[in-house]
Amino acid sequence: MITLGLDLGGTKIAAAVVRDGEVLARRRRATPQTGAADVIAALVETAAALLERHPEAEAVGIGCPGPLDFERGRVRFAPNIAGMEDAPLVAALTEQLALPVVLENDANAAGYAEHRYGAARDLVSSVYVTLSTGIGGGVFVGDRVLRGAHGLAGEIGHMTLLPGGPVGGDGHSGSWEALAAGRSMARDASYVFSREVSTAELFERARDGDAKALAIVDNAAHFTGVGLANIVKVIDPHGFVLGGGVSGVGPFYLDRVRAALERASHGYPQPELRVAELGDDAGVIGAAAVAAVETAAAPVTGG
Amino acid sequence: MITLGLDLGGTKIAAAVVRDGEVLARRRRATPQTGAADVIAALVETAAALLERHPEAEAVGIGCPGPLDFERGRVRFAPNIAGMEDAPLVAALTEQLALPVVLENDANAAGYAEHRYGAARDLVSSVYVTLSTGIGGGVFVGDRVLRGAHGLAGEIGHMTLLPGGPVGGDGHSGSWEALAAGRSMARDASYVFSREVSTAELFERARDGDAKALAIVDNAAHFTGVGLANIVKVIDPHGFVLGGGVSGVGPFYLDRVRAALERASHGYPQPELRVAELGDDAGVIGAAAVAAVETAAAPVTGG
Repeated sequence: MITLGLDLGGTKIAAAVVRDGEVLARRRRATPQTGAADVIAALVETAAALLERHPEAEAVGIGCPGPLDFERGRVRFAPNIAGMEDAPLVAALTEQLALPVVLENDANAAGYAEHRYGAARDLVSSVYVTLSTGIGGGVFVGDRVLRGAHGLAGEIGHMTLLPGGPVGGDGHSGSWEALAAGRSMARDASYVFSREVSTAELFERARDGDAKALAIVDNAAHFTGVGLANIVKVIDPHGFVLGGGVSGVGPFYLDRVRAALERASHGYPQPELRVAELGDDAGVIGAAAVAAVETAAAPVTGG
Repeated sequence: MITLGLDLGGTKIAAAVVRDGEVLARRRRATPQTGAADVIAALVETAAALLERHPEAEAVGIGCPGPLDFERGRVRFAPNIAGMEDAPLVAALTEQLALPVVLENDANAAGYAEHRYGAARDLVSSVYVTLSTGIGGGVFVGDRVLRGAHGLAGEIGHMTLLPGGPVGGDGHSGSWEALAAGRSMARDASYVFSREVSTAELFERARDGDAKALAIVDNAAHFTGVGLANIVKVIDPHGFVLGGGVSGVGPFYLDRVRAALERASHGYPQPELRVAELGDDAGVIGAAAVAAVETAAAPVTGG
């Protein structure tokens, strides 16, 4: 099935016509910063331009940030997109594009692309983990996205890994994200060195052998290992796909994560641990793939 | 479909002929303590006696403790059953009963019974949590048991909730089980009161208002809330079913767990939190139901 994938981000809108994970045509533009109506108009315009040349597309998938209301096809709010509050995305796109429209969480969309066509394409089940400014993810079993009862499955960065630990952006203490995301590493580095230190500089200092920088990196890798091991103990996935900026650091960080996962697994068989392969295309490929699978089969709300 | 369910425990073997969660006939006997061959013979004898009067049964399900080798249909080892090591349960039963035999983890079997016919029968997805001497569980989505890549899904009691916390029976530090299972509460009570204190006595003292006993109970409820909230953040199930001895304590404990789950969820929608309904029958009903669903459809290894 040929479908159209849209990826709505805080700064850009990406769109692509996709068949079985292969991009046939693509388009990209800046995200309007002037409210939901303009964002929706920009999405429609971008999609319509591609659909004109690819009328064979049978459905549209759209990956969005922020908590989504799947039942009503709305974006509850998207912290990084001005004016996106309770926005009726699905209704507006369905009406103006005259095609079925499927809404998906952006991390789920990118992860689903990796699950079906990227780093996890040979695995029955996988969990996508974005190690970035924050920590998010998605859970995939067979050809389905596991959304959960309230669309919250895969919010793995909010797992508590150290009750009483540092408070995160959501006011919650000791979450994986507050212990090991890029922004939390930068927080610790800035504290230790008494000036603003970026995650990139932290990793540079750690590579150069700075003991304090290395302690911060080791600590974050430790908690990421614990987080991954906890997921194993709940659903025992065939593998993990790591995406996001921190996963781009390479073996220096990933080897530490792998060792931490093994320590926290105390003898359990190890899942595959892979790095995302599809780069910037993951969002549109995943949104298009979700649209294909959801329009081909009845959605399973909980599965 | 009518199927036979077997529940192999450390002290007893239970068996039942079951149709859609309803027990049509049952049998029970002591588990031989004289090795795998005798255990298998006892299972065959118990099953055969029921099948003679119910030849309409189309398959056999068996719930077993201990790590299982699903691919080879074997019990790797069962700590509570003498001589059960690498026991070829499925091959032996299939040959002697001349019916398809499906092996399942005992917690998965009991949880599946609750999911399909008990406390969670109206929920699309549920997680069964045994709060007992230890903490175990099972994950159910739609009509399927989520087994995971290595049959380890639902080993939730081994999640790390407090790195550096007390060491558990598996040598692992800070697991949910080591922090909040019945045996860990008894450990803490025995330490606090400088003599052997059972979980039952601990709860009695806590109900009577003993501040130290109450602190132990509150601490365990806190970590159980954190454990449940962590599961929500991975798969967002429609509900939890609590089984095992500690769940039998009633509202005095469950209200504390519910409050702890809410605290640890920091504003997320709350899942249903229910107590198991099927009692001792859960094991046989679940084993029979797994046999029915697995022989009716091709099993999904990872799903």
